[in-house]
Amino acid sequence: MKLVPLTDRVVLKQCEAEETTKSGIILASAAQEKPQEALVIAVGPGGVVDGKEVTMQVKEGQKVIYSKYAGTEVKLEGEEYIIVRQNDILAVVE
Amino acid sequence: MKLVPLTDRVVLKQCEAEETTKSGIILASAAQEKPQEALVIAVGPGGVVDGKEVTMQVKEGQKVIYSKYAGTEVKLEGEEYIIVRQNDILAVVE
Amino acid sequence: MKLVPLTDRVVLKQCEAEETTKSGIILASAAQEKPQEALVIAVGPGGVVDGKEVTMQVKEGQKVIYSKYAGTEVKLEGEEYIIVRQNDILAVVE
Amino acid sequence: MKLVPLTDRVVLKQCEAEETTKSGIILASAAQEKPQEALVIAVGPGGVVDGKEVTMQVKEGQKVIYSKYAGTEVKLEGEEYIIVRQNDILAVVE
Amino acid sequence: MKLVPLTDRVVLKQCEAEETTKSGIILASAAQEKPQEALVIAVGPGGVVDGKEVTMQVKEGQKVIYSKYAGTEVKLEGEEYIIVRQNDILAVVE
Amino acid sequence: MKLVPLTDRVVLKQCEAEETTKSGIILASAAQEKPQEALVIAVGPGGVVDGKEVTMQVKEGQKVIYSKYAGTEVKLEGEEYIIVRQNDILAVVE
Amino acid sequence: MKLVPLTDRVVLKQCEAEETTKSGIILASAAQEKPQEALVIAVGPGGVVDGKEVTMQVKEGQKVIYSKYAGTEVKLEGEEYIIVRQNDILAVVE
Repeated sequence: MKLVPLTDRVVLKQCEAEETTKSGIILASAAQEKPQEALVIAVGPGGVVDGKEVTMQVKEGQKVIYSKYAGTEVKLEGEEYIIVRQNDILAVVE
Repeated sequence: MKLVPLTDRVVLKQCEAEETTKSGIILASAAQEKPQEALVIAVGPGGVVDGKEVTMQVKEGQKVIYSKYAGTEVKLEGEEYIIVRQNDILAVVE
Repeated sequence: MKLVPLTDRVVLKQCEAEETTKSGIILASAAQEKPQEALVIAVGPGGVVDGKEVTMQVKEGQKVIYSKYAGTEVKLEGEEYIIVRQNDILAVVE
Repeated sequence: MKLVPLTDRVVLKQCEAEETTKSGIILASAAQEKPQEALVIAVGPGGVVDGKEVTMQVKEGQKVIYSKYAGTEVKLEGEEYIIVRQNDILAVVE
Repeated sequence: MKLVPLTDRVVLKQCEAEETTKSGIILASAAQEKPQEALVIAVGPGGVVDGKEVTMQVKEGQKVIYSKYAGTEVKLEGEEYIIVRQNDILAVVE
Repeated sequence: MKLVPLTDRVVLKQCEAEETTKSGIILASAAQEKPQEALVIAVGPGGVVDGKEVTMQVKEGQKVIYSKYAGTEVKLEGEEYIIVRQNDILAVVE
Repeated sequence: MKLVPLTDRVVLKQCEAEETTKSGIILASAAQEKPQEALVIAVGPGGVVDGKEVTMQVKEGQKVIYSKYAGTEVKLEGEEYIIVRQNDILAVVE
């Protein structure tokens, strides 16, 4: 089963947060703020959205930063995804 | 009796939630958050909506993910439906 | 006396709610949530509304589902009506 | 002195509420909700309003239903008027 | 010193309220609601405002009714003025 | 160091308030409401802003009245400035 | 690793605040309001954003003033960045 996003929507999977503090201790993800980095899982076809032509600019497999308050969390076969509009993706991490 | 949606509206029927926890216990749907998966029951004709041309992209029988806060719940002959705008459908589940 | 709606407005008359519970008792409408089903009483001429061309798609005598928070209740000669914009009509019941 | 409305505005004068209850008692207007029926006193010229062409569709002397929360109450020489945009007039009463 | 309004703005000066009650007593303006009548002091040039062509329709010296919650109060050399957009002027009093 | 505003933005410097009360006492500015008069320090190039062509209509050195709740206060080398959009400038004081 | 902003977005890095009070004491940045000055780190390609053509007007390396409530804070490899839309940049500091 897979998610096929409509129009300008993008399916993301949040990256695991595993950050080392300055003192070298690894914090488990439960103790941290959710990172806003995510992996692009699927990209919608774009086209006319709200009467405006949208060209998709992100690709599957890219790592992106997305807007904190955007998106809808979706659970499919036990996996959690976030579906955002492309406009809520701020930057690609290269 | 059936619901014939206008313009870019889509009639959905929520999928039954029957999820198995890791320990193998089946949770009755009352104990769970409502899933956002739904079956497409009927699709409006599209056309000019708020002055913008809308082409319908979902079809009857598809399983879709829709936006959590969208839609109007409607009861017809004891059956519950949700009517959303196509724009509130995030992805098709294939 | 009759109501002649302007532009994309539609005059509705709410359907009487007379629902039988599973145990067979008929509940008087006072004890129930107002249904969203209504009969179309009069339809405006459409035309340019807020700078956008609107074509009317509902007809007098149709039974429709309308959006719960939409419309203005109006009382004329003791009869209660709801005036909504066509856009607040979600579906026709056939 | 008279009010000459600009653009798509319409000057209304609220109709006196004098309603007979079923038992035949006439309620004074103070004891009642204000009716939304009003008489059209003056109609603006229409034209381009917010960049959109507006054609006036109501005429002086018509009885209309207007939206409950719309309009500005104005007092001129002791008389009270309501100035609304044409868009806040829902229907003509014929 | 004088105020020269930009675009579709209009400088108004509120009319003095001096109203006689039915019993013939003249109420001082402090005891009253501010009237919405004002004198047009200066009119902006119009032109393209928010991407839309605006033609000015009021003239210096006219008495107008303006929207209660609109406008910015400005004090210049001890005199109080209200600057509104033309769109907040509801009607001319003739 | 100087501020070079982008698009339709204008850099203002608030005028000192030094107002004489009727009894002849000069009030220090701390005891007063901030005046809305300001001097134009720098003017952006205009051009296409939010998809609409904007022509700049104010000039450096002009004294203007600006909207009370508009603008962003900025401090540069100990001097305080306000950056507003041209649309928040209501009138020029001549 | 670097941030490559999409469309009209700009990656900023806040300037260190090190301000001397009038009495000559240097205040550590913790005791101060965050300054709104920032360095432009990366600039998106512009293009059609929300159906409107946007031309980028800031360049990498420029010092800019940005709107106080705009932008999303992002942390990448221990460094903090702010991603804003170009429209939230008020002025360039030269």
